[in-house]
Amino acid sequence: IIQEGGQIQFADQKQEFNKRPTKIGLRSLSRSISQSSTDSYSSVASYTDSSDDETSPRDKQQKNSKGSSDFCVKNIKQAVFGRREIEIAEQEMSALMALKKRAQGEKPLAGAKIVGYTHITAQTAVLMETLSALGAQCRWAACNFYSTLNEVAAALAESGFPVFAWKGESEDDFWWCIDRCVNVEGWQPNMILDDGGALTHWIYKKYPNMFKKIKGIVEENVTGVHRLYQLSKKFNNLYCCRESILDGLKKTTDMMFGGKQVVVCGYGEVGKGCCAALKAMGSIVYVTEIDPICALQACIDGFQLVKLNGVIWQVDIVTTCTGNKNVVTREHLGHMKNSCIVCNMGHSNTEIDVTSLHTPELTWERVRSQVDHVIWTDGKRIVLLAEGHLLNLSCSTVPTFVLSITATTQALALIELYNAPEGHYKQDVYLLPKKMDEYVASLHLPTFDAHLTELTDEQAKYLGLHKNGPFKPNYYRY
Amino acid sequence: IIQEGGQIQFADQKQEFNKRPTKIGLRSLSRSISQSSTDSYSSVASYTDSSDDETSPRDKQQKNSKGSSDFCVKNIKQAVFGRREIEIAEQEMSALMALKKRAQGEKPLAGAKIVGYTHITAQTAVLMETLSALGAQCRWAACNFYSTLNEVAAALAESGFPVFAWKGESEDDFWWCIDRCVNVEGWQPNMILDDGGALTHWIYKKYPNMFKKIKGIVEENVTGVHRLYQLSKKFNNLYCCRESILDGLKKTTDMMFGGKQVVVCGYGEVGKGCCAALKAMGSIVYVTEIDPICALQACIDGFQLVKLNGVIWQVDIVTTCTGNKNVVTREHLGHMKNSCIVCNMGHSNTEIDVTSLHTPELTWERVRSQVDHVIWTDGKRIVLLAEGHLLNLSCSTVPTFVLSITATTQALALIELYNAPEGHYKQDVYLLPKKMDEYVASLHLPTFDAHLTELTDEQAKYLGLHKNGPFKPNYYRY
Amino acid sequence: IIQEGGQIQFADQKQEFNKRPTKIGLRSLSRSISQSSTDSYSSVASYTDSSDDETSPRDKQQKNSKGSSDFCVKNIKQAVFGRREIEIAEQEMSALMALKKRAQGEKPLAGAKIVGYTHITAQTAVLMETLSALGAQCRWAACNFYSTLNEVAAALAESGFPVFAWKGESEDDFWWCIDRCVNVEGWQPNMILDDGGALTHWIYKKYPNMFKKIKGIVEENVTGVHRLYQLSKKFNNLYCCRESILDGLKKTTDMMFGGKQVVVCGYGEVGKGCCAALKAMGSIVYVTEIDPICALQACIDGFQLVKLNGVIWQVDIVTTCTGNKNVVTREHLGHMKNSCIVCNMGHSNTEIDVTSLHTPELTWERVRSQVDHVIWTDGKRIVLLAEGHLLNLSCSTVPTFVLSITATTQALALIELYNAPEGHYKQDVYLLPKKMDEYVASLHLPTFDAHLTELTDEQAKYLGLHKNGPFKPNYYRY
Amino acid sequence: IIQEGGQIQFADQKQEFNKRPTKIGLRSLSRSISQSSTDSYSSVASYTDSSDDETSPRDKQQKNSKGSSDFCVKNIKQAVFGRREIEIAEQEMSALMALKKRAQGEKPLAGAKIVGYTHITAQTAVLMETLSALGAQCRWAACNFYSTLNEVAAALAESGFPVFAWKGESEDDFWWCIDRCVNVEGWQPNMILDDGGALTHWIYKKYPNMFKKIKGIVEENVTGVHRLYQLSKKFNNLYCCRESILDGLKKTTDMMFGGKQVVVCGYGEVGKGCCAALKAMGSIVYVTEIDPICALQACIDGFQLVKLNGVIWQVDIVTTCTGNKNVVTREHLGHMKNSCIVCNMGHSNTEIDVTSLHTPELTWERVRSQVDHVIWTDGKRIVLLAEGHLLNLSCSTVPTFVLSITATTQALALIELYNAPEGHYKQDVYLLPKKMDEYVASLHLPTFDAHLTELTDEQAKYLGLHKNGPFKPNYYRY
Repeated sequence: IIQEGGQIQFADQKQEFNKRPTKIGLRSLSRSISQSSTDSYSSVASYTDSSDDETSPRDKQQKNSKGSSDFCVKNIKQAVFGRREIEIAEQEMSALMALKKRAQGEKPLAGAKIVGYTHITAQTAVLMETLSALGAQCRWAACNFYSTLNEVAAALAESGFPVFAWKGESEDDFWWCIDRCVNVEGWQPNMILDDGGALTHWIYKKYPNMFKKIKGIVEENVTGVHRLYQLSKKFNNLYCCRESILDGLKKTTDMMFGGKQVVVCGYGEVGKGCCAALKAMGSIVYVTEIDPICALQACIDGFQLVKLNGVIWQVDIVTTCTGNKNVVTREHLGHMKNSCIVCNMGHSNTEIDVTSLHTPELTWERVRSQVDHVIWTDGKRIVLLAEGHLLNLSCSTVPTFVLSITATTQALALIELYNAPEGHYKQDVYLLPKKMDEYVASLHLPTFDAHLTELTDEQAKYLGLHKNGPFKPNYYRY
Repeated sequence: IIQEGGQIQFADQKQEFNKRPTKIGLRSLSRSISQSSTDSYSSVASYTDSSDDETSPRDKQQKNSKGSSDFCVKNIKQAVFGRREIEIAEQEMSALMALKKRAQGEKPLAGAKIVGYTHITAQTAVLMETLSALGAQCRWAACNFYSTLNEVAAALAESGFPVFAWKGESEDDFWWCIDRCVNVEGWQPNMILDDGGALTHWIYKKYPNMFKKIKGIVEENVTGVHRLYQLSKKFNNLYCCRESILDGLKKTTDMMFGGKQVVVCGYGEVGKGCCAALKAMGSIVYVTEIDPICALQACIDGFQLVKLNGVIWQVDIVTTCTGNKNVVTREHLGHMKNSCIVCNMGHSNTEIDVTSLHTPELTWERVRSQVDHVIWTDGKRIVLLAEGHLLNLSCSTVPTFVLSITATTQALALIELYNAPEGHYKQDVYLLPKKMDEYVASLHLPTFDAHLTELTDEQAKYLGLHKNGPFKPNYYRY
Repeated sequence: IIQEGGQIQFADQKQEFNKRPTKIGLRSLSRSISQSSTDSYSSVASYTDSSDDETSPRDKQQKNSKGSSDFCVKNIKQAVFGRREIEIAEQEMSALMALKKRAQGEKPLAGAKIVGYTHITAQTAVLMETLSALGAQCRWAACNFYSTLNEVAAALAESGFPVFAWKGESEDDFWWCIDRCVNVEGWQPNMILDDGGALTHWIYKKYPNMFKKIKGIVEENVTGVHRLYQLSKKFNNLYCCRESILDGLKKTTDMMFGGKQVVVCGYGEVGKGCCAALKAMGSIVYVTEIDPICALQACIDGFQLVKLNGVIWQVDIVTTCTGNKNVVTREHLGHMKNSCIVCNMGHSNTEIDVTSLHTPELTWERVRSQVDHVIWTDGKRIVLLAEGHLLNLSCSTVPTFVLSITATTQALALIELYNAPEGHYKQDVYLLPKKMDEYVASLHLPTFDAHLTELTDEQAKYLGLHKNGPFKPNYYRY
Repeated sequence: IIQEGGQIQFADQKQEFNKRPTKIGLRSLSRSISQSSTDSYSSVASYTDSSDDETSPRDKQQKNSKGSSDFCVKNIKQAVFGRREIEIAEQEMSALMALKKRAQGEKPLAGAKIVGYTHITAQTAVLMETLSALGAQCRWAACNFYSTLNEVAAALAESGFPVFAWKGESEDDFWWCIDRCVNVEGWQPNMILDDGGALTHWIYKKYPNMFKKIKGIVEENVTGVHRLYQLSKKFNNLYCCRESILDGLKKTTDMMFGGKQVVVCGYGEVGKGCCAALKAMGSIVYVTEIDPICALQACIDGFQLVKLNGVIWQVDIVTTCTGNKNVVTREHLGHMKNSCIVCNMGHSNTEIDVTSLHTPELTWERVRSQVDHVIWTDGKRIVLLAEGHLLNLSCSTVPTFVLSITATTQALALIELYNAPEGHYKQDVYLLPKKMDEYVASLHLPTFDAHLTELTDEQAKYLGLHKNGPFKPNYYRY
């Protein structure tokens, strides 16, 4: 979060590189409409990409029903299908809807001009429409070449949002969209909602004068701000991965979990989630770690701590959750048994040394989408998922509930920054107040029909707390 | 299992009806090739159905590479894709491969002429090729209008198996295939491998003379033979459903399990599996039961035992696992909260009173394949999965490992019956010897790198057992 | 269960031997009053055994407050303490109390003269007083030298029950008590409630004429009647052991379960319970099995199946649950690592070859009650619990709830047998009707505030069941 | 941790009060020798307290075998039994033994004069002997009136340690012991190992000149130092309580966990551990929380979040883990159902309003040690454990493994402080370096036969870490 005129500290090169959109990374943050279909259900098929024409959206002349053409999407006619997806998402994003309702009267974002750069999904649409209801004007581009849901983009365009995004953008398209989003006559952004820092970097370099007018930036991944969205991060890592490891493996391989031997590399939050889920489904789970504290936790939690070398020949599945590079080397891959499944749940594409598998003596065979067999000369097959990219993003979906927490946090952060007295947030990267996380959490409790207990005056005094929080010191580990 | 000349006791009408193939039941016992794909991977797309021509297979003239035309499949040219699926299945069906290897020398099925009627999948192909290697001749038809994998059928036809099956058969096609399978000059079946009893019933009625020559019938579901495949049933119910409840819900709804309130109707084996899995993933699970013993088990296992009426207004998911009818009534459906998901994991299509939802005041909206929104006049939506058909079959897949146990048991049963001295199995339905289950289990242990302990002579004497089993009395509850 | 005049089939010698009371077997079926105390709380101490005088009860002249001396207990004055224990037990045995209330009007045991032979605990007292309220006359002896709670025996004697039992009986005392119980002028038993068959055997041998008048015998463990108390057995084995393995290990060794490596020998019901509990508390659990079906279950449930030899050198705990003999041999014991804990949760004292440890080169050191260190010449210590006797009986307690299920079943069995028309149960061992188990279960549901669902007429017809059960076929495996 | 001459910030009055020893708090940090015994095993009985004489240790003349009388213990002759307990503890405290071995050559504590104030248990003895081996001189007093193991104190005295402690000290004894420990001619402490701050406070007030010479203080609970022992705290709270909630309930009530309804107040680390354990054993668990973030975690983990009022009438057990006061009020207690168990796992004695139960209309009945029945006029009984004091300390034991982590951390902290260059730790309370926690963890990995992975140079560079740690930023939440 950077306030007006501030100098931004960008992510170091390594991370920035990983965050930049690439052709290789096939990420899907939303459920794909065609994904779960096994039969030819017609109305669904009617709005999938494959049936579309091949004309580039940039070459099309499209107008929405109000006559506006300030957008660029695949096919404005798909808006009705996208609207249905948005309506379904709204039902599961009640926290954002509640925020919208509560703050609607006072329009806390009146005058805000937000340029956004995220995945374009139904959940993003709910966020944009919330920001709009709170008084903001928004223009949006996609942060990924492939993740855009064309129908949702169409629905947003139809509702009057200047959206510039479609599935299957080229690199040139990608930058063109961003530019169309920012560089518009008579409109100058004063807030940025970024994902990975690329948009901020681009404005900073290309439109330095515009950058000086920016009142605040909301971005999850700038270096040093790891704790920015504690809550949203915890949900993305621990709770989300607990489910998506099962989902991703099942969708790609239809394997049975019971009795399978799995080694999970890394016992951070993602590793903890994966281990818990696999253990619960009857897998035998081994863990590797470099940090003795996490290692000890793995032990106490009932996982045998091993070196990868020690079990690589016997396991059925290898999963990486380290954030490190070359955790699974060509040597490891060589020692795996036939049919061993290899996948990555971590933070980068470098955990498995996939490059080392592109050698003449190995044969690659794509057996289905996101599933490659790498075949040794003796016939041994390794099953590589998503080419070593993130399984949870490539082959699973992030539940709407988790996206709701992220989106609600982003909306609150935008409100906080936009309304902060000048100078309150100095020229630096800032953590959001702990209270904001608590507020986001409280907005999500009704989903679970959960009833929070309130402190009595006497108890609050005893504990030295305000009755409405914050309830924990900053260093508290949830 | 019925031996030569025996009178068969058919399933009562109710069950038989449920077993008969219907257009409504979209079952998929195998992973669908197009299922998990989210991008347009070309080589996969090349052998999906949608791109095929519309000519009926019955009108086509097809020959395999050896010149035979004694088969009827969608497209013989797809054989190479089917062969790859079979090879992958073989790697996971090591028990059958071991059986093939062990028994191959002695050809225990030499002279056997088997007519089969099952789902046509890669796993069935492995079974057929095993039976063939053991000496049998096989002819095969599909037990379901929709479950046939055309590529696999093509691969079998290419290898010389008379297979009559394709995806999307009409009812007329269906009976035509069975007839082509049975009624062939110069070939008379002496063994039947049935699924549901329809094939047996059909031969009995239409070709009574042929029926008298049948030496044995292997069928899983004839009334009174519930314990026939104890092992295979346990795997299909408890272990398989433990995983497929999660898989089916995730694939259709992308929901998050953590914190969801679920009511599971029925705490038999299927219910136990569903409850355990959902609890492990963080759902709050309620159970309904009619049997006080199962009810007490649910209590001790940590599930609140309720009447459906008591919780219907508050739960996020309702799942039926009872085998009963009208467990979820229109009245229950009316009391559900908005977005409540309703699905059936049980044994019949009657558990949810879906018929009652086809009334003028309710609007049905198909939001994706297998997912319908039923919309009340006040806007409330109920999410009905697979139109109340079996979620585990419609929206999930049976893992190859489980299919392997079933197929291995079937192969052993065929060998046992075919080689039994005349009169050993009388004119009645019989349980397979317990030892056979133990043998099937032992063939699957290597999959888990499992090491069985052998009794010493002294221990066997102490326990009054043979060293090689059977190890338990018939009434033992595993 | 044997009806009037029937010939009884006794347990074979092996089992009978194990069932006979021995000085070695220190069983405690009830919570011991002094057990959990760490400080010198006076009023508790006041009624413990240690402070008592040393006079044999047989030499004492005692009368209860009504003047009767037809009993023999340690100290009639302790009755008030025993009554309190009984009252506490009554609160947890609501099923028996409900049975008492329901059947009290009709006195279904009027005329029954029951001689009983069980552990003498507060729960047994509740059973006796229920039988009495239902019309029966009872005389009772203890089935174990050590398990009698003197205070409870005193309370029963004070209430007028002829009880002959105290803690620390000699073998001579033991048989004297049984004789006093049976051989009484003007009173002849017509029903037997036995535990292990010793009482039945004794009457049969010593008083053959009396035996002919016996109308029925209720006994849990006669050979061939394994399924007699399905429900009670399931609770005793699976659910009870799931808790008592933790309790027994904690009470004796104060160990931490998290991260401990454990091998559980045997994956029957007891083994399943032990494995589930230890896994849940974070132990790494290995399993040994001889039966491939149970072995496969262990695999699918997520336990590595091993031979004991393969892991004996690395594990922290070895537990036997097999019913077999010499499962843990001297050779295994020799290979264990220092501080390895060895204990037995199975059915006999022979599972661990304890005898082999009584050799000159090994030193035994009792470090606390039920805990011996066996010390090798190199200083290695093995921690042997309860000298290889049953850990769950020696070092843990059976929860009142489980005892309630057993006692309720016994009471119902006595009623059933006593009221059965002559000849209904023939001269053989019989299973109780399945419906009785269902009834026992239903009596215990209110404990859990559990609400059973009732079948509609339509549903009962559809399932072919009576609305009130039995709900499952005899072979059903819960 | 306070360095030389520093001003200490004491705990606020509330906390200090809780930490001060009281007659009411019956804490036992170690397994009690007589605890698990149910029979009169003689050699154990021979060294229990009850058989001892009543003379106050202060009035006895005792010498150890080397002729020293600089100690005051119950009975120096019990040393042999205490030595055995210490030897057993050593086997489970291998981390401390390893530290002893590694650092023994260099004597990093040479010249250190440590005055200690902790529970006197076998584990403390291992710590003291380690400090001594590293070069320190130690004098020790007990921090609790009741927790001292007399045999261990005797063994320490016999080995030459000036120990002043016995079980059952009066308040006057208590301060006398501390004084004897500190105020000795020719010996002046330069390091303090405190527990709760009372010793530090006492020296500061009574011997201000001595206090100025103190080079460092190691204390776990000084206000503001919550993160001092992250690792040790995590183990004490989460992992330890996960086991001790079961142990404490079982030891006091012999209840069955399966099917019990439990409400856990507070979902911090202790609450999380309790909930996980109870859920795993088949209880139905409800949670109350005041913090919406912890509340949301409870929901996602599968626990129904409620207000205490909403479930108080239906639950079988109420457990508090909040650190708050009056969480369970008299009103709540009044609404509980008969036989409801109430206990406290939290941080203070104030969580349950026990005082409110001391009113004339309620009858208290002590049914066994640590278990009171509070009886309403209508006969309803509430089962109150440990009079509302900490169940985990009163009725369970802290596993040696957890004590080992604490003791190892204390030893390392003493070494760190004693050897730090003057001024390195300023006049304030300090966190120990993160690396120290990692080192403590690594010393405990061999216990689990755990194999840590080492970073390659390339990986360390990629991650920007040193190969030997620290591996995580300070804010990392394990």
